[in-house]
Amino acid sequence: MRATLESAKEFKKVVDTVAQILDEICLIANEDGITARAMDPSHVALVSLEIPRLSFEDYEIEGEKEIGIDLEAFKKIMNRAKSKDKLILELDEEKNKLNVIFENSGRRKFSLALLDISASEIKMPEIEYPAVVMLKGDAFKEALKDADLISDYVILKVEDNKFIVETKGELNDFSAEFDEDSSALISIESQGHAKSAFNLEYLLDMVKGIKAGDIVKLYLGTDMPLKLEYSLGGANLTFLLAPRIEG
Amino acid sequence: MRATLESAKEFKKVVDTVAQILDEICLIANEDGITARAMDPSHVALVSLEIPRLSFEDYEIEGEKEIGIDLEAFKKIMNRAKSKDKLILELDEEKNKLNVIFENSGRRKFSLALLDISASEIKMPEIEYPAVVMLKGDAFKEALKDADLISDYVILKVEDNKFIVETKGELNDFSAEFDEDSSALISIESQGHAKSAFNLEYLLDMVKGIKAGDIVKLYLGTDMPLKLEYSLGGANLTFLLAPRIEG
Amino acid sequence: MRATLESAKEFKKVVDTVAQILDEICLIANEDGITARAMDPSHVALVSLEIPRLSFEDYEIEGEKEIGIDLEAFKKIMNRAKSKDKLILELDEEKNKLNVIFENSGRRKFSLALLDISASEIKMPEIEYPAVVMLKGDAFKEALKDADLISDYVILKVEDNKFIVETKGELNDFSAEFDEDSSALISIESQGHAKSAFNLEYLLDMVKGIKAGDIVKLYLGTDMPLKLEYSLGGANLTFLLAPRIEG
Repeated sequence: MRATLESAKEFKKVVDTVAQILDEICLIANEDGITARAMDPSHVALVSLEIPRLSFEDYEIEGEKEIGIDLEAFKKIMNRAKSKDKLILELDEEKNKLNVIFENSGRRKFSLALLDISASEIKMPEIEYPAVVMLKGDAFKEALKDADLISDYVILKVEDNKFIVETKGELNDFSAEFDEDSSALISIESQGHAKSAFNLEYLLDMVKGIKAGDIVKLYLGTDMPLKLEYSLGGANLTFLLAPRIEG
Repeated sequence: MRATLESAKEFKKVVDTVAQILDEICLIANEDGITARAMDPSHVALVSLEIPRLSFEDYEIEGEKEIGIDLEAFKKIMNRAKSKDKLILELDEEKNKLNVIFENSGRRKFSLALLDISASEIKMPEIEYPAVVMLKGDAFKEALKDADLISDYVILKVEDNKFIVETKGELNDFSAEFDEDSSALISIESQGHAKSAFNLEYLLDMVKGIKAGDIVKLYLGTDMPLKLEYSLGGANLTFLLAPRIEG
Repeated sequence: MRATLESAKEFKKVVDTVAQILDEICLIANEDGITARAMDPSHVALVSLEIPRLSFEDYEIEGEKEIGIDLEAFKKIMNRAKSKDKLILELDEEKNKLNVIFENSGRRKFSLALLDISASEIKMPEIEYPAVVMLKGDAFKEALKDADLISDYVILKVEDNKFIVETKGELNDFSAEFDEDSSALISIESQGHAKSAFNLEYLLDMVKGIKAGDIVKLYLGTDMPLKLEYSLGGANLTFLLAPRIEG
């Protein structure tokens, strides 16, 4: 397996985000591209990563390979990416290593020892959601950071064609509203209300890689898991987060 | 009371600066605008804040309101301001809260619990000063930071049409001179000498919000309090700082 | 002695770099300019600094002066340099101080107490090197930082007209290759192989001041000291670093 991505710096954000939630991951590389899926250690969040073959500048594979990665080590290596560095991921089956190569004015090669883990069998559950919201990723991220000042949970709501992020603290409260007048809101589709509470720490981890210009898609229900999707550096990221059910 | 400021980010600097010196403040809002005046807990510094009605993009008030603010909490909220955010301060008398609203591509509302404190009766003393100096705020701020390397106090002097910031440490010394050849010095008026020593920590707190382009006005005497004035984001800030009298 | 440099900010990088390796230094100022040479406390690295008279905007000297400097204090002062500040170094023999003056929109003067140390008698040894490499300084610096992720030493090699930076960790490895296709490599001259290992911490200290656009010159042999040269803010820096001989 040898896969070339145009921007190492963009892919770094993907690894940064996934490494917030998972300690290790098993990448599956086959002729369709690279995918991975895993639950976080506390089984509250599911992460799904998909890099279609077309996202690669160049892609060579024979059969299907499972590549077990220590995300902390991979993240540290990816943090060495410089702007304009090209990224080559190269499986060295003989040495049981993944070569992580940055190409630019020179060629810098890290060899990362592989982990002996196998791909999870978890499937992304198929859920029907009463509400789907598309909005500017950075507006969503900032609203979550706002809420983080006030409390450790957040309520995501859809009502009257508005998307609302809100929380209450001991003394102070916060709410952000996105309606048809908000340039941050791209679309909202709903059949009735949707309202669920989530752990803020997980949500903040999930949106870590988002930057200005990215669009997020949120699938919401009442006391239902949140599905959150966005694309980053050629990769499609999907997260599922269990709701926090109040007693 | 509902007051709109064009730039939340500019007003953040005002709150940052005042919160360096005070823990809480009672804002008085009436038809002239918003004012506040308070001494720091150790009674060394007096802070006076004045936002004239004209500084607001929009301003609605009935009668006079006293608004008691926990500056630490207010500062944390204001630190969430993004460039291009508009700021709306809205008194909710029923809930006894101040709504701090950021408007941009969406609408983010913090509700800050009010404190039950009343406005101080302190007046800004009317003092005749032998010397008045106007200079570029960032040049003054940098000279204070320089002095901070060397000692914990600073002497501010006016002599021979020069404004001097100086201090002596155990081993090393520092002095900054601003004379008619210095582009940082805008004007200097004096009747004889002026020379007073001040605690550097307080001075650094007072100039915290100053950025390139701001002008400060200093009123100086010999062993007299310093009066320091500048404008920031539509607010006029005045500080009075007791001198440090050497034994 | 009174010496004026156009950019205080550039000279700050020189002081930053030298202060990484040495605690104190004795500058020798004479009609040729300013020089200094010293070994680090553990005698692993030799630092040589040379600022030719022509690098100064203005330079006045009578005879030869030895100026003993506490580099930690000098570094802190130089860190107060602002862009566009001019730097004047002025020896006050009467007070036994070095005046460090920043001139811009005002004039800020630090007086640094001199140390009673004398110039070292160390000479830069004349060594014939089998390989000489010139490359872009930031590419070299980044490769060293890469290696620092993996281990605490690095091997510098010249073979087959390639310059190689490599290291091995417990689990993961790193290597950077610069060959004729690498735009970072400017020239390479060699008579046979060269391969030596070095302590990474020292190397990282030595390249601290390097920024985009700077060129470094490396003199390499097998189990021989490294000679590293580059210019910074009008100063020529030369470092000699003892190799790490593996048991």
